[in-house]
Amino acid sequence: MSLIVVGTVAFDKVHTPFGESGRIVGGAATYISLAASNYVDSIYLVSVVGSDFPETFLGMLEERGVDLTGLERKENENSFFWEGRYHYDMNSRDTLETQLNVLASFEPKLPEGAKNADFLMLGNLAPAVQMAVIEQLESRPKLIVLDTMNYWMDSALDDLKTVLKRVDVLTINDEEARQLSGEYSLVKAARKILEMGPKTLVIKKGENGALLIQGNHMFYAPALPLEEVVDPTGAGDTFAGGFIGYLAHTRDISFENMKRAVVAGSAMASFTVEKFGTERLLTLTDEEVEGRIQLFIDLVDFDIVLVN
Amino acid sequence: MSLIVVGTVAFDKVHTPFGESGRIVGGAATYISLAASNYVDSIYLVSVVGSDFPETFLGMLEERGVDLTGLERKENENSFFWEGRYHYDMNSRDTLETQLNVLASFEPKLPEGAKNADFLMLGNLAPAVQMAVIEQLESRPKLIVLDTMNYWMDSALDDLKTVLKRVDVLTINDEEARQLSGEYSLVKAARKILEMGPKTLVIKKGENGALLIQGNHMFYAPALPLEEVVDPTGAGDTFAGGFIGYLAHTRDISFENMKRAVVAGSAMASFTVEKFGTERLLTLTDEEVEGRIQLFIDLVDFDIVLVN
Repeated sequence: MSLIVVGTVAFDKVHTPFGESGRIVGGAATYISLAASNYVDSIYLVSVVGSDFPETFLGMLEERGVDLTGLERKENENSFFWEGRYHYDMNSRDTLETQLNVLASFEPKLPEGAKNADFLMLGNLAPAVQMAVIEQLESRPKLIVLDTMNYWMDSALDDLKTVLKRVDVLTINDEEARQLSGEYSLVKAARKILEMGPKTLVIKKGENGALLIQGNHMFYAPALPLEEVVDPTGAGDTFAGGFIGYLAHTRDISFENMKRAVVAGSAMASFTVEKFGTERLLTLTDEEVEGRIQLFIDLVDFDIVLVN
Repeated sequence: MSLIVVGTVAFDKVHTPFGESGRIVGGAATYISLAASNYVDSIYLVSVVGSDFPETFLGMLEERGVDLTGLERKENENSFFWEGRYHYDMNSRDTLETQLNVLASFEPKLPEGAKNADFLMLGNLAPAVQMAVIEQLESRPKLIVLDTMNYWMDSALDDLKTVLKRVDVLTINDEEARQLSGEYSLVKAARKILEMGPKTLVIKKGENGALLIQGNHMFYAPALPLEEVVDPTGAGDTFAGGFIGYLAHTRDISFENMKRAVVAGSAMASFTVEKFGTERLLTLTDEEVEGRIQLFIDLVDFDIVLVN
């Protein structure tokens, strides 16, 4: 199965109450591709970088089966850069600086080989850019997953609503679900959002896990309580990459299999936060991922006998 | 099995972004007793009320098997009163007014029949008052559960640490676990707290569920996503009452059974928040509780095949 991953490939600088990352590689498509590469051999990365981006890192992506034909490289320009500071609770953050750089004029171009891909992951980008990708497809993928954020709900809501009509799964966090729907109750919020286009909603709750909703079916995967959280950046993208990677690998988009995919994505995300940036993902083995999935199984396992 | 419940029996006035309760019956021991009464026939309530407290409500407690011998009634004084306002997220609140009234001079007195009870639930009160109850026991209960809050960590930390040495299970919320331990990571926080006395810790996470920790064992019960959250007041106490009630009923304090008790407590708490005050708990049937436990089972159910 082939997978297209669209999103930023960028530099981050992260400050937490416990340390600072310096300038490191980040970006939604970076995390998504790295996570998905644990499950999928054929990944088309569609993004843009400047001439400041390290070739060695791109080489590592290629070694993991990530096709970079769709990665535009702009000479004499700089890559997208984001700098942020996490609050003490590590669940919220302030943006200190954003330099759009190459992203300001980004026009995604799907490579020929990608136009009939089976799975499409649209990482967080302007909704119009996400739409431009969909319009280049020659056949409808089995599954399109879209990630977005509150920034686009504030600044490009109409575009967002247009692209939502074209996707199967939306991933957002709980505050964004409340903002997009105007409903406080996540159950009501989900119902409204599922009328906007996607048949399936994943509500990401950070250290509190993730909620998968499709029709009247709900599944709650808690996040694994961790000894050490160094840097939450990229956790949501890692989750999305593990989620769609698992689905593409198993070629099964039923609700039952999406539940497994949520657990796989949660397991991967739990690694990302243990180090700054992509460091932990780069050394991840299948055995480590499965070991962590076993911890998830144990974490929620109980048996109870109902008498009525 | 007999259960002692110690805590406030009081009046509340609750403001939420969606409504206001007026003056209604509340108090930790009220919620704990009502929840536990679904599982336990013999409950000794130890508390204090003023002459303003409605006899009809006390009659309802007695009908549910709650023994009021240990409930002191002070003539010409008023009951404890708390007024608070929930923020839009319904997870945090401000206290608008606290009138200690009868609570200012509360000296709990265990009835004779309670001094050899098998289970003791110490609801949130001054740690010195909780300790005074333990010192009146004639035999060590099978299980002592203690609930407390940040207020006592700020104002009576030494007393709290003293009483913690005498209890088996501590229930607090995530912020309180971080405050009590000085650790951000809940895993590290739990480890430190479990060195303070209790062998088992329950971390309550409101709409994000509850975490049960004992030694190296962890269990995470998510909260059920609800259509409507009217009033979170008493949810934590309802949880505690369902938890200890289930344990007392089943006479089994193993970790496996505590997992079931966490699910039972979570199910009960999910009812409490659907109406203001104790309203929903008063009409709760066994069938409704079991129906909701089934929803919990479905909510976290998944199967995944590990290949490594």
